[in-house]
Amino acid sequence: MQLRAAILGLCFAASAAWADPQKAAQLRDQALHDDTAWQVLESLTTEVGPRPAGSAAAAKARDWGVARLTALGFSNVHVEPFAKQAWLRDAEAGEITSPFPRKLALLGLGNSVPTPPEGLTAEVVVFDSLAALKAAPVSCCTGKIVLVNQPMTRTQSGQGYAAAVAARSAAPLASAHGAVAYLVRSISTNTARAPHTGSMRPWARSERAIPAAALGVPDADLIAHMAARGPVMVHLLLRSHVSDTTAWTISGDFPGSDPAAGAIVIGGHLDSWDPGTGAIDDAAGIAITVAAAKLVAATPHRRTIRVVMWGSEETGGSSAAYLAAHKDELGSIAIAGESDLGADFVYGLQLPAGAWDAPDIAPLESVLAPLKIMARRAPTEDAGSDVEGIQSAGVPVFALNQDASRYFDYHHSQDDTLAIIDPQQLRQNVAAWAATLSILADTSVDFRKVKP
Amino acid sequence: MQLRAAILGLCFAASAAWADPQKAAQLRDQALHDDTAWQVLESLTTEVGPRPAGSAAAAKARDWGVARLTALGFSNVHVEPFAKQAWLRDAEAGEITSPFPRKLALLGLGNSVPTPPEGLTAEVVVFDSLAALKAAPVSCCTGKIVLVNQPMTRTQSGQGYAAAVAARSAAPLASAHGAVAYLVRSISTNTARAPHTGSMRPWARSERAIPAAALGVPDADLIAHMAARGPVMVHLLLRSHVSDTTAWTISGDFPGSDPAAGAIVIGGHLDSWDPGTGAIDDAAGIAITVAAAKLVAATPHRRTIRVVMWGSEETGGSSAAYLAAHKDELGSIAIAGESDLGADFVYGLQLPAGAWDAPDIAPLESVLAPLKIMARRAPTEDAGSDVEGIQSAGVPVFALNQDASRYFDYHHSQDDTLAIIDPQQLRQNVAAWAATLSILADTSVDFRKVKP
Repeated sequence: MQLRAAILGLCFAASAAWADPQKAAQLRDQALHDDTAWQVLESLTTEVGPRPAGSAAAAKARDWGVARLTALGFSNVHVEPFAKQAWLRDAEAGEITSPFPRKLALLGLGNSVPTPPEGLTAEVVVFDSLAALKAAPVSCCTGKIVLVNQPMTRTQSGQGYAAAVAARSAAPLASAHGAVAYLVRSISTNTARAPHTGSMRPWARSERAIPAAALGVPDADLIAHMAARGPVMVHLLLRSHVSDTTAWTISGDFPGSDPAAGAIVIGGHLDSWDPGTGAIDDAAGIAITVAAAKLVAATPHRRTIRVVMWGSEETGGSSAAYLAAHKDELGSIAIAGESDLGADFVYGLQLPAGAWDAPDIAPLESVLAPLKIMARRAPTEDAGSDVEGIQSAGVPVFALNQDASRYFDYHHSQDDTLAIIDPQQLRQNVAAWAATLSILADTSVDFRKVKP
Repeated sequence: MQLRAAILGLCFAASAAWADPQKAAQLRDQALHDDTAWQVLESLTTEVGPRPAGSAAAAKARDWGVARLTALGFSNVHVEPFAKQAWLRDAEAGEITSPFPRKLALLGLGNSVPTPPEGLTAEVVVFDSLAALKAAPVSCCTGKIVLVNQPMTRTQSGQGYAAAVAARSAAPLASAHGAVAYLVRSISTNTARAPHTGSMRPWARSERAIPAAALGVPDADLIAHMAARGPVMVHLLLRSHVSDTTAWTISGDFPGSDPAAGAIVIGGHLDSWDPGTGAIDDAAGIAITVAAAKLVAATPHRRTIRVVMWGSEETGGSSAAYLAAHKDELGSIAIAGESDLGADFVYGLQLPAGAWDAPDIAPLESVLAPLKIMARRAPTEDAGSDVEGIQSAGVPVFALNQDASRYFDYHHSQDDTLAIIDPQQLRQNVAAWAATLSILADTSVDFRKVKP
């Protein structure tokens, strides 16, 4: 590996247009001593805090984003508004009324309908898994509250979330089984009581909409323990409202030397869920990409680096809005990627199929190795949900894979705050992004033409 | 060590009155497959839940305790009432009103006075440590809210708590500095938002009582981050009430063969704080000691094993009540110990000074070694706060030291639930207690006469 890198190094020296691994390594090392990302993260979580799309705080976040990009020297800083039907939480409460009365820690799910104003009370039917609910007779749950109490698997890759999250959208299935409300054990790897919210899929017109909420992990277990003794009655009061409003994509550029080479589009999402301050989800992604872009932009670079703060990831819409707003200029995006899995160590880089074999990209493997990051040759599957739209329309994507082992301890809960950010891991993220961006900005590779 | 144990084993065989390490080892191994402790813990947390002294749930817990000891075959099961001035929480809320409005996660401290009914609003003065508040000029805080934002050190022994907890009783100091309210960063090793409550020391008549509450760790940090930018205003509403009521000590025996040998008094406390279900604090202590006593009692044993559920540890009173109720019969207590530091692995056993050198106790070291428990020759300092009273009156004590590394992540917060109990570690605790109890029950050693 070392020898190959050295030989390739000679080739690079012969072509000024090619990416420079030495520059990438310098940016990597500089990033390990740079606290721009921390400052951005601290600023957004302290000064704005929770910022769901459609809330008053979302407008504050928009202004924060414009001011912050401008202050950091980005050009072409602008706001792209798009229509957004917002779902916002109002008062919520839940309790076990018998056999052993107890208050419940819960949070309504995005897109849930409210309960009647006085709430509703019904017996709970507990299922250990979503599969068990699917297998139950359709008569199982008439007039009852369905609880799916399926634990989540902890994984480094985040695949445990993919496996578990379908239960968050099972309210329509519970409704089809006659249920009057749906409860789901939080999609969480934690043992803490704080519930983890999230969106369920919107109701179809043909479906009977019922209220849906996530319970704290111990609260879901508590109901299961009581249900093993006999009937459990639960009272739920869930209030929320929807409104037609506006969300915004914030965008800023560090222009490259060759406008014809296409831009690199990166970023994170500016909206967050409401219980925490959205530190790992996703102030971190904004902080990491902004800081890395700023470092790379301080050196000569070929492609424009565009940092985007998407405005409605949690309840959906920003990916489609970004595609719609830029559908006529997708050819000018060379490659895209999002940081949206927290701030813990990056362990892998995935590129478009075949790109790792390009001679002026291959040396990036050696630049990333000291950061304990692998070159992953499997092509990128998931580059972030805000770039899904442009990805599906043909824009090449890359992904810096973050260790998600503890991400789902905090995600979508009140525990997503600055307190869980590890500054050393945050800097490693910036180093990974800076080195990668430097190579992607300068490489002669056209990612649309690279062959696996 | 093995040889020494073998030689001592011969000695034991020569005297039927002496403790039997083989029996202790059998009980140890039996405990590792016994789920009595889990069942007790599950029952108390599921059926009763939070149970502060003076609450309606405390009376339910009393009835649960009597029923559970009776069902397990204890004799002499009885209730010892004592007078208790209860402190109980009512509605509470807090928020940052400027510069960046935000709701605060907080819990009033036991013995705090309420705010005025409409609450109070004042600027916050942040101190990084209790020492910094002590060193501040007395004029620092007139009309302000004092926040001591001192982080806690994580330790295996729990000494980090001892070092940090003084800040929870610093409201009188803040009052002396002119403050109108006192906030303390939760005495916690966690990064979660859930606040950790606890008692402050009662106010002296000469002091100007001010309201006092614990903030979630990230909330305390958030105020500190805002305060670095300029003045921070906070609104507090803390309601609570005190009432003259009754608490109870629950007690049950497994009688030994030699009433003159004195009883072994062990147990945990039945009361808990209100936000969680009191699983590690201290349903676990009750579960471990009950289960271990039951195992030992199934074999012939010399001393009576008495299990006590103390009724008011959190807000104080049960230790003094137990001393007062039993002051004329302390001579009949051979030795005492409490389990009140959760359910994680035991790593050490401390006995009265010199006791480890007694020939029929020394082999216990080899019985505990496979459980990764050390014989600790430093005499017991802390045998549990409910036995402090009788300890100060001359009753010998022992302590099975539990690993407290993660205990203060959950202690006194809503996260103290069954979900954080590790069944394997719980069984190791029962094994440690069963082996130790077996030796202490049968040994010919008089712990009052042993010489260091």
